[in-house]
Amino acid sequence: MLPYHTPLTVAQLRALAIPAPWAFGQTDRTRFGEIDALNHVNNTAYLRWFESLRLPYLKSRQVSDYGPEGPRLVLAEIGCRFLAEMGINQDYVVTARTRTFRTSSFVMDYAVWAMDAGEPEAPAILTAEAHAGIVLRTQDGDSKFPIPDAARRLFAELDGAEAL
Amino acid sequence: MLPYHTPLTVAQLRALAIPAPWAFGQTDRTRFGEIDALNHVNNTAYLRWFESLRLPYLKSRQVSDYGPEGPRLVLAEIGCRFLAEMGINQDYVVTARTRTFRTSSFVMDYAVWAMDAGEPEAPAILTAEAHAGIVLRTQDGDSKFPIPDAARRLFAELDGAEAL
Amino acid sequence: MLPYHTPLTVAQLRALAIPAPWAFGQTDRTRFGEIDALNHVNNTAYLRWFESLRLPYLKSRQVSDYGPEGPRLVLAEIGCRFLAEMGINQDYVVTARTRTFRTSSFVMDYAVWAMDAGEPEAPAILTAEAHAGIVLRTQDGDSKFPIPDAARRLFAELDGAEAL
Amino acid sequence: MLPYHTPLTVAQLRALAIPAPWAFGQTDRTRFGEIDALNHVNNTAYLRWFESLRLPYLKSRQVSDYGPEGPRLVLAEIGCRFLAEMGINQDYVVTARTRTFRTSSFVMDYAVWAMDAGEPEAPAILTAEAHAGIVLRTQDGDSKFPIPDAARRLFAELDGAEAL
Repeated sequence: MLPYHTPLTVAQLRALAIPAPWAFGQTDRTRFGEIDALNHVNNTAYLRWFESLRLPYLKSRQVSDYGPEGPRLVLAEIGCRFLAEMGINQDYVVTARTRTFRTSSFVMDYAVWAMDAGEPEAPAILTAEAHAGIVLRTQDGDSKFPIPDAARRLFAELDGAEAL
Repeated sequence: MLPYHTPLTVAQLRALAIPAPWAFGQTDRTRFGEIDALNHVNNTAYLRWFESLRLPYLKSRQVSDYGPEGPRLVLAEIGCRFLAEMGINQDYVVTARTRTFRTSSFVMDYAVWAMDAGEPEAPAILTAEAHAGIVLRTQDGDSKFPIPDAARRLFAELDGAEAL
Repeated sequence: MLPYHTPLTVAQLRALAIPAPWAFGQTDRTRFGEIDALNHVNNTAYLRWFESLRLPYLKSRQVSDYGPEGPRLVLAEIGCRFLAEMGINQDYVVTARTRTFRTSSFVMDYAVWAMDAGEPEAPAILTAEAHAGIVLRTQDGDSKFPIPDAARRLFAELDGAEAL
Repeated sequence: MLPYHTPLTVAQLRALAIPAPWAFGQTDRTRFGEIDALNHVNNTAYLRWFESLRLPYLKSRQVSDYGPEGPRLVLAEIGCRFLAEMGINQDYVVTARTRTFRTSSFVMDYAVWAMDAGEPEAPAILTAEAHAGIVLRTQDGDSKFPIPDAARRLFAELDGAEAL
């Protein structure tokens, strides 16, 4: 069984058949309140999962320390394709990476991988693919905030992200 | 003041400077629970609004009567661009239309228009643009369900939708 | 049809058979996202409704202008009895009043009244009764904040609240 | 570090200074979407936690196997006292037990215990106390459903619940 709420190692991701270049992911479990009247996980729940993972991801890539001097993250765009329905009490991994980046903006990819509770060694099943366009701005919102150099390096090194 | 939770007439939409081909929309107001820790309406709230509007829209276009013989609606894909942040107790119109349709699937567009509480005559401001790809399936999920002829006609007549 | 999102007059409340001493209420409609996997409005949705109504209510009773000098409202306790299940697209009125107050704290009552869409003249049906214990504190949270005199007067005059 | 989403042993609960008669609890972590505009965990999130824990608890006490022959659980009443505010990314344990039971209804208690991330050995802090009144009914809702004998025994043995 994989730990919940804890960044997985690349080895743990690969053991679930989650391929490169995914290098950041966390495990959680679907809950009653995420199921809608059609008896499946509601589409907004996936976006909540991406949002929740975004915070530890951006810290790990040193985009922001979430302190008063840090940038304000503005979500400019999201997209999500739903590939398989999910039910209650299902374990899943959400993965995140940065695909491309510019001076003050970047595009992240996300994926959801359902785990087979009965067979912990079984490959995880891709249930959703998504992306988000994010812009960094100063806290007052007046101007753009450049992506820190450390983050640009980590985007490239850890995620294989491309500078545009 | 426009009525909430009630389909607006085309004349009401145009009076807010919401242009053709938008022909279906409803008014609502942002609430405390939609505001997130960053003090703006959370991105998932917009998707809830599209979902809520989808039901009366699809009834109006005769896609489904939501009875036991009707199709099951499967959300295959969503996308949303956020153009301006929204705050609490803000009146807004959500508009919906079908852009294109095939035998058993169609692509809907959505938009969110913030209204100026102080100046009810002022043009509404576009704060988000979105789309959704929807597939009709039989209730057992086993096969595709063709879009009813009446719905194909209404998609074309009322929304200017294109048959692909 | 009653207006949504707008404080109702006492005459409008009484016309729905909502009895004295209820004197503050607003109308809204249940939405898809409030329905849970058991196909009824989820219990947390009711608490969201009370929270949403609390803001205009407290403004009307001059407890807070929600400015930087105003008090911080701390929810100390809630309770709710569910009397009848509710479904999707159901119109309802939420009512609020203050039952008792002390120097810096007060107890509010809430009720939910389902309206009969087919018969707008029919009496509304009580579906939930609730209360909340609220404490006013200074913005820094360090000390209690006394209920303003104007609010104490309005609690007594408009709601029949009892000073303890 | 305690495992998330997994029933804790009584020894694990006591090690966190969670006293008898609490005998059932699970660990989780607060998330971004549970924080409201006042920058604390919203009151409805606590009720979601109790709801989520209710399902594995009731299975463990053999009240329902959640199959088609099982009872329908009707939430008749809830109450919650909030003792300390909670923030983002805070680990917590939710505990549940049955306090009293009758033929077809029972009263459950819940508590939330915040864990100190820096000091895993530190006693957990009680942040909320709650209860819920639950009634078992047949699936058609027409009549009451008696609590199974096995559940009555487990309520008494594991939770120290009192038969009324």
